[in-house]
This record gives sequence, C-alpha cells and structure tokens, in this order.
Amino acid sequence: MNKIYNPKQENWASLLERPTKTVDDIEATVKEIFAAVQSKGDEAVQQYTSQFDGIALENNLVSNAEIELAIAAVSEELKEAIQLAKSNIEKFHAAQNTTRVSVETAEGVECWQEKRPIQKIGLYIPGGTAPLFSTVLMLAIPAAIAGCKEVVLCSPPDKNGNLNPAILYAANLCGVTKIIKVGGIQAIAAMTFGTATIPKVYKIFGPGNQYVTVAKQLATQFGVAIDMPAGPSELLVVADDSAVPAFVASDLLSQAEHGTDSQVILVSTSKKMIDTVEQEVQSQLAVLPRKEIAEKAIANSKLIFVENAAIALDLINEYGPEHFIVCTENDNFYVDNIENAGSVFIGNYTPESAGDYASGTNHTLPTNGYAKNYSGVNLDSFMKSMTFQKISETGIQNIGKAIEIMAEKEGLQAHKNAVTLRLKAIENGK
Amino acid sequence: MNKIYNPKQENWASLLERPTKTVDDIEATVKEIFAAVQSKGDEAVQQYTSQFDGIALENNLVSNAEIELAIAAVSEELKEAIQLAKSNIEKFHAAQNTTRVSVETAEGVECWQEKRPIQKIGLYIPGGTAPLFSTVLMLAIPAAIAGCKEVVLCSPPDKNGNLNPAILYAANLCGVTKIIKVGGIQAIAAMTFGTATIPKVYKIFGPGNQYVTVAKQLATQFGVAIDMPAGPSELLVVADDSAVPAFVASDLLSQAEHGTDSQVILVSTSKKMIDTVEQEVQSQLAVLPRKEIAEKAIANSKLIFVENAAIALDLINEYGPEHFIVCTENDNFYVDNIENAGSVFIGNYTPESAGDYASGTNHTLPTNGYAKNYSGVNLDSFMKSMTFQKISETGIQNIGKAIEIMAEKEGLQAHKNAVTLRLKAIENGK
Repeated sequence: MNKIYNPKQENWASLLERPTKTVDDIEATVKEIFAAVQSKGDEAVQQYTSQFDGIALENNLVSNAEIELAIAAVSEELKEAIQLAKSNIEKFHAAQNTTRVSVETAEGVECWQEKRPIQKIGLYIPGGTAPLFSTVLMLAIPAAIAGCKEVVLCSPPDKNGNLNPAILYAANLCGVTKIIKVGGIQAIAAMTFGTATIPKVYKIFGPGNQYVTVAKQLATQFGVAIDMPAGPSELLVVADDSAVPAFVASDLLSQAEHGTDSQVILVSTSKKMIDTVEQEVQSQLAVLPRKEIAEKAIANSKLIFVENAAIALDLINEYGPEHFIVCTENDNFYVDNIENAGSVFIGNYTPESAGDYASGTNHTLPTNGYAKNYSGVNLDSFMKSMTFQKISETGIQNIGKAIEIMAEKEGLQAHKNAVTLRLKAIENGK
Repeated sequence: MNKIYNPKQENWASLLERPTKTVDDIEATVKEIFAAVQSKGDEAVQQYTSQFDGIALENNLVSNAEIELAIAAVSEELKEAIQLAKSNIEKFHAAQNTTRVSVETAEGVECWQEKRPIQKIGLYIPGGTAPLFSTVLMLAIPAAIAGCKEVVLCSPPDKNGNLNPAILYAANLCGVTKIIKVGGIQAIAAMTFGTATIPKVYKIFGPGNQYVTVAKQLATQFGVAIDMPAGPSELLVVADDSAVPAFVASDLLSQAEHGTDSQVILVSTSKKMIDTVEQEVQSQLAVLPRKEIAEKAIANSKLIFVENAAIALDLINEYGPEHFIVCTENDNFYVDNIENAGSVFIGNYTPESAGDYASGTNHTLPTNGYAKNYSGVNLDSFMKSMTFQKISETGIQNIGKAIEIMAEKEGLQAHKNAVTLRLKAIENGK
C-alpha cells in the first residue's frame, strides 16, 4: 500500500489517476464480429458461441423447462436472500417514480412533462465463475417498475450449454421476457441489430469485460443507448479516529477482490488510522480465497493523509469515487458537500457490500470519474422524459407576438408565419 | 411531396428511413484538431479560429464592455420577447425539480436518492446568419436552476471578431459565467481538454453542424458527457379533417426551412386533408425567404395516408419523431398512447414554433429515432442522481445474513467478510 502525506493540490490529478487501458487492438475484433452478426444474424452468433464458449448450441433460447429446473436447483436459503434483496430494491426504486409535471406557463399555455418507459431493453450478465445474479436484480427490477415491454437478458453459456441456476431464477423472478444463452461481443451485436431469435433493443445495460465494454461503445454508433461508460470498480473511504479500522480494512478488501485493476483509496486526517488499517488489511488479506487478485489491487492502493476535512473533501470531489464510504465524527460535512460520487455509504455499519446486494440502492454506478457527469442506474434510466404542450386561442395570443419577434430575429420566417397565420385566423373570427 | 397510400407494415422501416450521412472523412480532421488543442492549448485554438473564422483574436474572452454594448444594441421589443420566453422556460423547468427520495427499506436501513448539479457545463451555440439566442435560453436557464457552478458558452466570432448581440444579451441574462469567442471543432476540443483560458467541462450541450456533431462524439471518448447524439431536425404531423390545412402546411414549412435534410411527414386518415395541405404548402412556400432550402426538404417530404388511427399510431411509434403535432378529433388517443416522441404539440393553436421559442418546453430534443431511448434536454440533464445509505446496527442485523449468502454464492468472500466482521462485533457487544 502506498502512503502519501499531505499531497500538494497540483499533484492530485496524477495521484488520483485511474489505470488506463488501450482498446485499439480490441476494436478491430469487435467491428469484425458486429459486421458478421449484422449480415449473417443467428448463424454468426452460433459460430462465435461455438468459438468462444466452446459449445455448439442448436437453440440458444432458454426454455421454460430449463427455468423450472433452475428454480428447483436454487437452495431455499439463497431464494430467501434474493427475495429480501428484491423487496428492498423494489421499495427504493418504486419510490423514485415521478408523476406528470404540469405547468400553465402563461394563460392558455399548458405544458407538461411525462416519463414513459423505453420499450425494449437488453441486459448483459457476464458468465464465468462468479454468477452475477445480483446484477440481474439491479437491472430487471427497475425495468419492470418502469414498465419496459420487452426485457431481453443475454449471458454466456458454460461448456455444457447451461446458465447458472441463480441467474435463471432471478431473471424469471423479476419478469425478464426472454433469456438467451449468448455472451461477449456477439451478444451485444445481436441486441444492436436483432437476429431471427434475438430481439433488437433500444438500450443495453450491464457490466462485462473489456470486449463487452468496447462492444457497448460501438453499439451507440448504431443508435442503441447504453447505461453508462464502464471502467474498473473503485472505492474511496474517508475515515478519522471514530472509524473501526477492521471494518475499513474489510471494505477496502471487498473492493480489491473484484479485480487486479480495482481502485482502493483511504483518505484520513489521522496517521494512526492509516497505519492501523494497513496492518488490518494485511492480516485479513491472508485468509481470503481471492487473495491473489486482492493482493495486486492492494499493492496499487493509496492511503492518503491530509490535514483537515476541507482538504479531504476537495480531494474526494476531484476524484469522484464510484463508491464512497464516510466514517468520521462529522459525517454530515461530507454527505452535505460531496459533489461527485456514485453511491455514498455512511457510518461504521454500512459496508459497501450492503449496497452491492441488499440495502436497496443500485450497484450499477459510474466509475472512472464519471460520477462527475453521469448518474448511477436508477428508475429513470429505463424511461425517457417527453414533453407536451396544448395552447388555446388565448394562449397563442399571449405568447404569439414574442414568438414572431424571436423567429424573425433568428431569420426563420416560416416559424414566424406558423404563428401569424393562427393569430390572423383568430382576429378574423376564423 | 411524396404521397403514399396505405403502406404495408413490412415497408415502414424503409419508408421512414432518415437520410444518413457518412462521417468518415470528417473524423480525421476532428481527431487532428483535438490532438493539436490537447497538446498546444490556446495557441492551437487561436490558429484554427484564424483559419476557419478568418479572424486573428488576441483575446477570445468576451469582456464586460462587450456585454454592455450588446445590451444596448438589442431592441426593447426583442428584450421583452426574450424575457417572456425566459419566464415560461423558467416556470416549466423549475417545476421539474425533484426532492430527495428517502425510503427505510428495512428497519435500520435508510436509503435516499438526491440529484446534485453537474459542476461544469459547456454550451455550444453555432454562429452564421441565424443567431440562435433561443438555444442559449434553452440551455442556460435549466443550468442555472440546476445550480451548475461553471457555465461556459462557446460561439464562433464573425469576421470582425464579434458575437451577435442577442446571443450575448441572452447569455448574460441567464447567468452564463464565461463567454468565449471560439467555434467549431476547436471549441469542443477546448472544452474537452481545457486550455489556459477555456475551462475543461464535464458535459457539453448544444447543436452544431456535422463537424461539431462528430467532435461532440469524440469528446465522449475523453470522459466528457454530451446532451444527446444529433441528427437533422424532423416533424411529424398527424391530422384528420378537424385540422386546419393552412396551419398544418405552415408547420411543415417551418420544419422544412431548417435545412435541406430536414424531415417532414404528414400522416392522415383523410385523403382530402393530404391533398389540401399539399396545395397550401405550395402557395405558402412561394413567399418564404428561405424558399430554396425549404423546397428541397419539402421535395423529400412524405404525405402518408392510413386507414385508421390505430395504424397511424403504430407507424408514428415506429418512427419516433422529434416533434409530433396532433390535430385530430381524438387527440387524447395519440397523447395517451404515444411511446416515442421528443415533444408533442396538441391542437390547432399549438404550432411547433411555440415550443421552439416560448411555450416553456425545451427545444433540444432527440432526432433520428433517438426519441425511443433518449430524453429531450430537461432539468435532470444538468444534474446527476446520487444514492446514499445509512445502516444502523439493527439494520445490518436485518439484512446482513442475506448479504453473506449472496456474496458467498457469487464467490466474493471479502464482500461477505465485511458483513460478518460487523455482525460479530455487534454480537460481542463491540
């Protein structure tokens, strides 16, 4: 772990720099697969599944029989845990529902804003050893609350052509309309262009490796929206002597086990806290099953001492952490003044893993400094805002003159004329 | 104008296709200018301004003296019109403000969502013959309501090194913090990387030609967010015999005068209406100053007859118009069931130009079918949603077990451990 004392503000940018990946060599592969899926559809999807996942699938659509088997295979204990998480995620996301905003801006000029669901949604869930059924909950639950009509889930099959039962259980529980055994670039391409079996969607959500990330970026060039740009996961903890060092260490490690490129930062106004956390990390690290991964991330981690809370806050706002844990005597100072963070965890009994699974907040959050300009996934991510206006004869008489003047000044005579014709018709009693 | 009767559904996609532009040859220029601005800053900006705008500017920052001169140069009539528009836009966007959403998802588990302003915003306003001061209102007013700290406006200078007074007046009125005389790709690049005089921003808003559009796309690769992908402006009107043909024609023409690539579509269940509107368009077109532009757009326009409102609605939802005018005996059918549209204009006395200038709704809207997956600019466009959670000892006892089970099942032992440590501490009375 790297200890830094009182870094100068002009060095913050380099101190807080994220690891950057070059994606140039990936891009060619992604473009090639997109072109193949666009022109050959299911045939290309099948071929890439065979090539990358090592399984030749006649039919990649998950059947009801498979879902029944999965439901039977998931333990009661896990089902109960998923149900509890689902209940909390539902409560929090349902509360985000906004009603129609309606204003009579001038007499006879009624304007309103409504949010309506994005009709076709695609969810990407990675495969591999760790089956991310929690991400299924985080994406499919708000999609259902928003009222998205079609919710397609793609996830890569294992060598036997199966998906993890917990993923199938969660997807079925949360109302996913179609589950397809396809992963990687070919899954993103299929949801972008549509094939005979895989529907084209309007917006793609979900995490993935760098191939999937680049594929999602490319999808935006074909009219598909994505949840947000992706980067390695990250956690910043601010702690003073009121924090429990063992808890802080456990949070840093739970971030570090995600991947060797995970970002882990502790900011503190106490040198003692920094030293104690460092020791705690070493002792907890020793017994972790994913020790090798966590060790590499921890080696790159930073323990930063600053003189006071004001400096700490400025530094944290400059970083814009995805996850931000606050454990200090004056938590409210940070909570009230944080400008850039994905999700904030407050106090000794709020570990980051609570938000990852079951507190109710969403775990799909902006990384890589994107907390400065992007929201984490929330109910609105599955909807779009539309505006409406209805103007009466009185209304157009009230604002018509202003429109005429402005349109003329912008050199748009036909815009003016659309108003002039109406005003004249009213004057002439139609 | 092209008349199409009862098009078959399988032909809708090609019938409703937007004109596509190839951007490949532009991309090289854009990348070159980005690289130059990134490495040479203001020096490169100055050089490109000289090259593209034909003026060598020593200082491209608009001074207070220039603003004073602009205020004096704008007519009282235009000032009053702008004030009226500003008042309506303010009322409508202020009403979109959402309060903190707070839920105790389980006893002791408090979660909330808050929206906080994006701190640094860039607005791009094109130059040329038509000074788009209305766009200044549409972007700077919600930015001010959102509480964005830094609002930078870039617009290209004319041959004498000036900006249009109406743009300066509107920018000053709406609280823009810095106005810079720089346009085109170099303006977008400067706001992406920052220079000694032009601040780096987190999100860029505003229209522009295809160079600016490609530059905004490239900016997203450097961590900057943009309002939305852009395409030519478009209008779809649905009208039956209750519509006034002259009004419909005037709306089609006000869209057509934007550019030769503007999209203009009339959908009707009345062949008579289609014929009458066609005649009206010809007679109104004859006297327009921007006749040449409008004529070309009108030549590509489509008048589509369908048998009934249900078919019309399906076709309109497949198209997803930026602007959607509804003038029928049963407007509510369309208003209630439209799934994809940027902004909806209802009834004979609601011309599209009302929304462009003064009704209060925003005129920065998704084109090119993006109404299916993107919101038009609204108050939330200038904010990001953040979540917070605070869990008590009781709270972690309520949800801790579920987190442990789920984390273990996903193979993330350190995530589990962060909870286990806390539960044990509580059991042991800390």
